[in-house]
Amino acid sequence: MKKGVMRPGHVQLRVMNMQDAIAHYRDLMGLIETDQDSQGRVYLKGWTEVDHFSLVLREDSTPGMDFMAFKVLDEKTLDALHQDLRAYGVKVTEIPAGDLKGCGRRLSFVAPTGHTFELYATKEQTGRYGVGNHNPEAWPRGLQGMQAQRLDHCLLYGDDLDNTYRLFQEVLGFDLCEQVMAEDGTRVAQFLTVSMKAHDIAFIRHTEKDKLHHVSFLLESWEQVLKAGDLLTMTNTAIDIGPTRHGITHGQTIYFFDPSGNRNEVYSGGDSFYPDHPPITWDADKLGKAIFYHDRKLNERFLTVVT
Amino acid sequence: MKKGVMRPGHVQLRVMNMQDAIAHYRDLMGLIETDQDSQGRVYLKGWTEVDHFSLVLREDSTPGMDFMAFKVLDEKTLDALHQDLRAYGVKVTEIPAGDLKGCGRRLSFVAPTGHTFELYATKEQTGRYGVGNHNPEAWPRGLQGMQAQRLDHCLLYGDDLDNTYRLFQEVLGFDLCEQVMAEDGTRVAQFLTVSMKAHDIAFIRHTEKDKLHHVSFLLESWEQVLKAGDLLTMTNTAIDIGPTRHGITHGQTIYFFDPSGNRNEVYSGGDSFYPDHPPITWDADKLGKAIFYHDRKLNERFLTVVT
Amino acid sequence: MKKGVMRPGHVQLRVMNMQDAIAHYRDLMGLIETDQDSQGRVYLKGWTEVDHFSLVLREDSTPGMDFMAFKVLDEKTLDALHQDLRAYGVKVTEIPAGDLKGCGRRLSFVAPTGHTFELYATKEQTGRYGVGNHNPEAWPRGLQGMQAQRLDHCLLYGDDLDNTYRLFQEVLGFDLCEQVMAEDGTRVAQFLTVSMKAHDIAFIRHTEKDKLHHVSFLLESWEQVLKAGDLLTMTNTAIDIGPTRHGITHGQTIYFFDPSGNRNEVYSGGDSFYPDHPPITWDADKLGKAIFYHDRKLNERFLTVVT
Amino acid sequence: MKKGVMRPGHVQLRVMNMQDAIAHYRDLMGLIETDQDSQGRVYLKGWTEVDHFSLVLREDSTPGMDFMAFKVLDEKTLDALHQDLRAYGVKVTEIPAGDLKGCGRRLSFVAPTGHTFELYATKEQTGRYGVGNHNPEAWPRGLQGMQAQRLDHCLLYGDDLDNTYRLFQEVLGFDLCEQVMAEDGTRVAQFLTVSMKAHDIAFIRHTEKDKLHHVSFLLESWEQVLKAGDLLTMTNTAIDIGPTRHGITHGQTIYFFDPSGNRNEVYSGGDSFYPDHPPITWDADKLGKAIFYHDRKLNERFLTVVT
Repeated sequence: MKKGVMRPGHVQLRVMNMQDAIAHYRDLMGLIETDQDSQGRVYLKGWTEVDHFSLVLREDSTPGMDFMAFKVLDEKTLDALHQDLRAYGVKVTEIPAGDLKGCGRRLSFVAPTGHTFELYATKEQTGRYGVGNHNPEAWPRGLQGMQAQRLDHCLLYGDDLDNTYRLFQEVLGFDLCEQVMAEDGTRVAQFLTVSMKAHDIAFIRHTEKDKLHHVSFLLESWEQVLKAGDLLTMTNTAIDIGPTRHGITHGQTIYFFDPSGNRNEVYSGGDSFYPDHPPITWDADKLGKAIFYHDRKLNERFLTVVT
Repeated sequence: MKKGVMRPGHVQLRVMNMQDAIAHYRDLMGLIETDQDSQGRVYLKGWTEVDHFSLVLREDSTPGMDFMAFKVLDEKTLDALHQDLRAYGVKVTEIPAGDLKGCGRRLSFVAPTGHTFELYATKEQTGRYGVGNHNPEAWPRGLQGMQAQRLDHCLLYGDDLDNTYRLFQEVLGFDLCEQVMAEDGTRVAQFLTVSMKAHDIAFIRHTEKDKLHHVSFLLESWEQVLKAGDLLTMTNTAIDIGPTRHGITHGQTIYFFDPSGNRNEVYSGGDSFYPDHPPITWDADKLGKAIFYHDRKLNERFLTVVT
Repeated sequence: MKKGVMRPGHVQLRVMNMQDAIAHYRDLMGLIETDQDSQGRVYLKGWTEVDHFSLVLREDSTPGMDFMAFKVLDEKTLDALHQDLRAYGVKVTEIPAGDLKGCGRRLSFVAPTGHTFELYATKEQTGRYGVGNHNPEAWPRGLQGMQAQRLDHCLLYGDDLDNTYRLFQEVLGFDLCEQVMAEDGTRVAQFLTVSMKAHDIAFIRHTEKDKLHHVSFLLESWEQVLKAGDLLTMTNTAIDIGPTRHGITHGQTIYFFDPSGNRNEVYSGGDSFYPDHPPITWDADKLGKAIFYHDRKLNERFLTVVT
Repeated sequence: MKKGVMRPGHVQLRVMNMQDAIAHYRDLMGLIETDQDSQGRVYLKGWTEVDHFSLVLREDSTPGMDFMAFKVLDEKTLDALHQDLRAYGVKVTEIPAGDLKGCGRRLSFVAPTGHTFELYATKEQTGRYGVGNHNPEAWPRGLQGMQAQRLDHCLLYGDDLDNTYRLFQEVLGFDLCEQVMAEDGTRVAQFLTVSMKAHDIAFIRHTEKDKLHHVSFLLESWEQVLKAGDLLTMTNTAIDIGPTRHGITHGQTIYFFDPSGNRNEVYSGGDSFYPDHPPITWDADKLGKAIFYHDRKLNERFLTVVT
């Protein structure tokens, strides 16, 4: 949190049928539906999240990610980052407070990979769902499905990884936690963090701009990853791979698809990071093992199916 | 245990290089090496097993299973089963005590699928490894690798499932716990048990006789299945599939290969069975889900790679 | 299963307020309410159990256990056991079919410890709750609370352990799995099994006859034992001890009380047993460790609070 | 990390017999012994820690904690914090580089509770034990005992909580994550964090200054907390309480004592924190539940046994 950027705060996804999407994100993944707005967007969050929402679903004819937002420490920090972004040459658009319900003004900009990111400092705090912050129980009864705990990170596909890394590092205070390097010195993948998590945002080099590989949500344990897999089968949901472990981050994972074809991950564990840690480097010829630690090879979908 | 047959007692496997096999079964899987004999065979067991051994490795030019043996209640039961087998028309060969070190006389016979089975009543009891039976600690310190707890079951491929089932049921007192049925009424797979376990022996219909699909060993928990997968990667051991769950038995599993190409499984959980339970039936068009509950389809190796 | 006795089939408990008891056993412990009868008794079972019920609650002014029943292989076995019990000098009362809904005739007798036991062969089979036996999913969605899987065993307090052991062993085919022995050779505790479980019924020596220490239900894993503990706190339910491990059986456990003061256990793991295993012996001066493996001493309730 | 303080970097403990202490921290808890110095101090660390050591043992006639140190971002940050501490009125002593082997200069000061804290920016980075940062495996084989992953936090007892909180918050950039409040508005306990962890340092109000309640180390999972408990019993190590869950932080825990009487904790899970989260408040009359979530009451040792 070198520059006051704290965490992924929300992601807005395009879904092709809202009812199906709600059944997926709320009933199957166990996110809490917290609101909807006049544009028909639906707001959800994981039960441990203090803020009002972390996932926004918008109905559209194509799937994919509209934008990913990071919450910063306070409005003063937001102003400073605004200035820093502009000074760095980034075009910033300010979206007024209230455009997303309960959310303050947001600064929007496009990274060199073509993805739209946002920064904001203020969002209504409704507290941890069902437990609050006064003598809180361990967890709320009555959670659904996978009982996803929080929005965790996104993995994005895009072309200009180098300049995106530079922007995130120099202006936003992210650190490079892990990377995959080709023999010729090209960085094939970069996992960036602004916290103790092994990644808050990750990028894989790809010919197209602005592609979403997956949005990831945290689960409590490896046992809950198993049960997530069970639920995918019970609901006949398209699975990609898992349960397994990643080499990168060493987290335990399962990948699957929402009804619109957006890839999701649920995830537990994973290494910790501090800013004094040197980055972990994977050789590109170990990419299979780096991604899927047990299979040690990529399935063909990993490099080709994005939204 | 309707006829006094208690459990899988041992399996003898052919391996092509004994030192590699010991590194695999002892150092990686964590079985305890308990003995070897004048023929060069090596004896191992899981640490929770009371008897002297449950796995015998024999060096040979081809991999596969020589025989699988079941322990019966006592010598009197063994005599009764001898008589019953002969009365049923099965040719029985008696192998004298001491042929396997510490093991009493064994009755050997070939099932209609072509596999060789044995029955025996007596084996030296050396006790649970490292804990014994007087104020026993929860587990012994210093176990290696996967810390496999016991020989659990075998899955065998062969042709005449129907007569093999009849033999196991009528003469040996096994029950049909789960089955996979084709639309035309053919039983494609049969999972038989003589205990509370979901299977002590299983068969899948196949054109060849006398093939081994896998030998399975029990682990403590789903977390240990994860760590088994990790160890497979760390030791560059060929993995087949997993970690995942089976539909049949609902156990949690990972499949891999020993250095000779024999498939192994390590496994945790799984349903319980009692003799009054009706068999569970899977439709053959659900075979993928029945075998690999999360992927819901077979990998090509499952039906073709046997030893 | 040497004499055809298969497993604990049901327990009838006295509770002082039926609505409170239902809230406890159904909503908190997650048993399935399956029926009630004209006497006002309520029937429940764990979701993995195939038969119609395994727990019967009867409202009365004092808590405790009315009887515990074992299911036997078939009606012919029941007749043989009837004869064997009488030949052994046990007075047997036959309760007609239908006295418990969906349950066939039951043979009732009093053991030397003063507890009433029953044998029966027939009970309506309604199948595993929510999954059945045709292409069954891994588990049913919508289970409540602790999601208890099955009735597992009872621990009873009584005086004449020696003759009760003899009766269970010689007539009913149980084996002594574990025992606690005083220096003077008195058996202080005996854990008996008729299956692969470390105990189907256990007794601790006590001055009074016919006391219930606890009824135990199986959970899926150590993680579920943690969540059971959490639920006890959330519902302000009286806890006795745990989560912890037992020395005897090495199972993972938590003890608590129903609203009438009957002690319950939920439990995962535990050693396996076969009839050729020598009993495990704990010295009475290790009783604390034998019961509560981590604390290594009894809490005062363990030896004094029974119903 | 508002002021550049990153994490607990090391703790120096007094132990009364070094060989016994090494057997405890290295062989039982599974810390890696990395060094010793000319004063006879022994250095250890958890296997996931990148720096050279996190625990220093010093032989002395009484147990307790000499000091706890926090690592800061870089030497420039250390200078700024030096200035800020002095400006705040804190007396700072600079200890030259090399006093602890492989560690740069340290700034030492005494907090109002009487505890000695240190700040430093430089320590030799020897990397994650056994895995490094190039294509790292999931974990190293051959870890001992509890396989403790890292130094996590300390809980300290002292008198002046209010001024200590102010110092940590205003000068060092810590946030108040959780607190226990008496009816009269006295803060009985304060859990402070400088990261995403639920606490990096915690204080409980106590009449004496400068007391250690416990030093805590992270484990991988609740299953590993169980195995830690097992190991305590196997090694006849004095246990305090657990396995259980805390209300505060909701982490899973077991407390025990080193051979000198210093209390240790091993711990898994626990809530996450961000600087925009309002503190969680526990009422003092819920202190039992706040500390030991399942038992819902303190054991007498919790408030009285400190070193």
